[in-house]
Amino acid sequence: MTVTCRRCRSAPAEVQLAYAKLSLCPNCFQEFYVNRVRRTVEEFKMFKPKDKVGVAVSGGKDSMALLHSLKTAFPITNFIALHIDLGIKDYSKHCKEKVEKLAKMLDVELEVFDLESELGFSIDDFRKTIYRRKLCSACGTIKRHLFEVLAERAKTRILATGHNLDDVVATMLNNFFNGNWSQLVRLKPVLKPLMPNQTFKIKPLIKTPEEENLLYCLYSEIPFREVNCPHAHTERLKENKDMLQYLSKGNPGFRHQMLKNFLKLIPILEKAIEKPKLTTCKICGFPSSAEVCAFCKRVEMVRKVKK
Amino acid sequence: MTVTCRRCRSAPAEVQLAYAKLSLCPNCFQEFYVNRVRRTVEEFKMFKPKDKVGVAVSGGKDSMALLHSLKTAFPITNFIALHIDLGIKDYSKHCKEKVEKLAKMLDVELEVFDLESELGFSIDDFRKTIYRRKLCSACGTIKRHLFEVLAERAKTRILATGHNLDDVVATMLNNFFNGNWSQLVRLKPVLKPLMPNQTFKIKPLIKTPEEENLLYCLYSEIPFREVNCPHAHTERLKENKDMLQYLSKGNPGFRHQMLKNFLKLIPILEKAIEKPKLTTCKICGFPSSAEVCAFCKRVEMVRKVKK
Repeated sequence: MTVTCRRCRSAPAEVQLAYAKLSLCPNCFQEFYVNRVRRTVEEFKMFKPKDKVGVAVSGGKDSMALLHSLKTAFPITNFIALHIDLGIKDYSKHCKEKVEKLAKMLDVELEVFDLESELGFSIDDFRKTIYRRKLCSACGTIKRHLFEVLAERAKTRILATGHNLDDVVATMLNNFFNGNWSQLVRLKPVLKPLMPNQTFKIKPLIKTPEEENLLYCLYSEIPFREVNCPHAHTERLKENKDMLQYLSKGNPGFRHQMLKNFLKLIPILEKAIEKPKLTTCKICGFPSSAEVCAFCKRVEMVRKVKK
Repeated sequence: MTVTCRRCRSAPAEVQLAYAKLSLCPNCFQEFYVNRVRRTVEEFKMFKPKDKVGVAVSGGKDSMALLHSLKTAFPITNFIALHIDLGIKDYSKHCKEKVEKLAKMLDVELEVFDLESELGFSIDDFRKTIYRRKLCSACGTIKRHLFEVLAERAKTRILATGHNLDDVVATMLNNFFNGNWSQLVRLKPVLKPLMPNQTFKIKPLIKTPEEENLLYCLYSEIPFREVNCPHAHTERLKENKDMLQYLSKGNPGFRHQMLKNFLKLIPILEKAIEKPKLTTCKICGFPSSAEVCAFCKRVEMVRKVKK
């Protein structure tokens, strides 16, 4: 028996959203998806329609769906896609092509940081450093820093990232289980900058389940990367997601409920947590807890092995 | 190959404690178990050796192990066993006999509240009330109230209960997942009374994994009930414990780690949570959030159906 879309009551339903007890046709799903993005931006006051907003796009389904849905939800807003070419063999070129394709398709400006040509090394080069077994951690540090640089170039102080509901809740739970409260509070929907000239980090997909980003990409014919990063060891992240799946068993609203709980908990924790003492990195001038920031330390290290 | 006890290095090890990487013989395990009870009491300043301490004993393995280990750890302390005869057919009589046996064995005074003879009804009678589908909830309310009455009769203001590590952590997680923070904070090791003449509730087994209570009973030849309550629907509790088991997979220290996290979280939450406004019940004078307390409401209800 074909189920009819609960919204339009005409087209056959293709998407089942158990947590919302909703069956939708592709068109109504896309509308539902974009509406949620719009409402999330408005609820957390992420930006105003006339703001200039940087969108971090990797080429993956989440960030590509983010850029597309933001542009659809806020047609007058000035979005600028920010992309880092990490110089990873058999991967980064493919990602960049997809990002360029989507930017063109949406008529959105694109600002690219090219690691190899601008800094003289690639993420691959970290294989020769002590980071070879924690490449993803080094890559994360590099990216966090360079998105700030890109935002500066793009003259925006708002940086949207594609973190989805599953990412956020799984990471929150993991931080909670490990008592990492200072990390936990950083997962909130709008993260204020640590220092005045840095970006506000916003998460417009914080209420969007991971699987819906894929569906949205497919239905909206959004290009996205089809290969995985050769360095990605996603076991730990997968474990967290498995846990989330286990906890959601028999309770499809679990992820949403947990997000709600955490969002209530965060302001309480924030009051109790000591703020880290920050200084500025003597090399790059970015906020840092040490004399030289994590980014500059890693750059120094990788440049040594390149010589 | 037989493993030798890591403590005495002579007897064969029978107990493997994965979280502590410890293999122990029965004697050394009993010593280890009692030492943990002693240290827990001391760490949280649950009572002083010369205090009079009421111990709530149901006849189950947890509370029976509690009474035995407390008496062993603090030989000069004046313990008094408190038991409620709930009047449940094919169950309560059996439980009371076990409790009487242990009290005699340990030479500990026993104070029993007999529901049927003192109040004129039994827990079974709730089957005829609107509580028939939530008998355990009504029974919990009745027991909480009557243990206060028993403590008063025994002239003690300290009430020890047999909540074990698994109970506490599973309930904490459940409360956390449901955002029930006011319930969560009540799980701390020492719960101060809401009103001056009520008891301090202490949990000396809060660091003791459930399975060790059973082992301690078996090795110490402690009598304990061998039948289950006919009313017990333990599905939800079992689900919580299953979840705990799942989360502990590959991390035998998970329960201890979570307890530590929660114990750090509780004081933070307490500051943020509004204290409930309490008054005294116009019937019994106990603390209550309404004019008539939950206990008196249930008593009234069950007495109506008995007429």
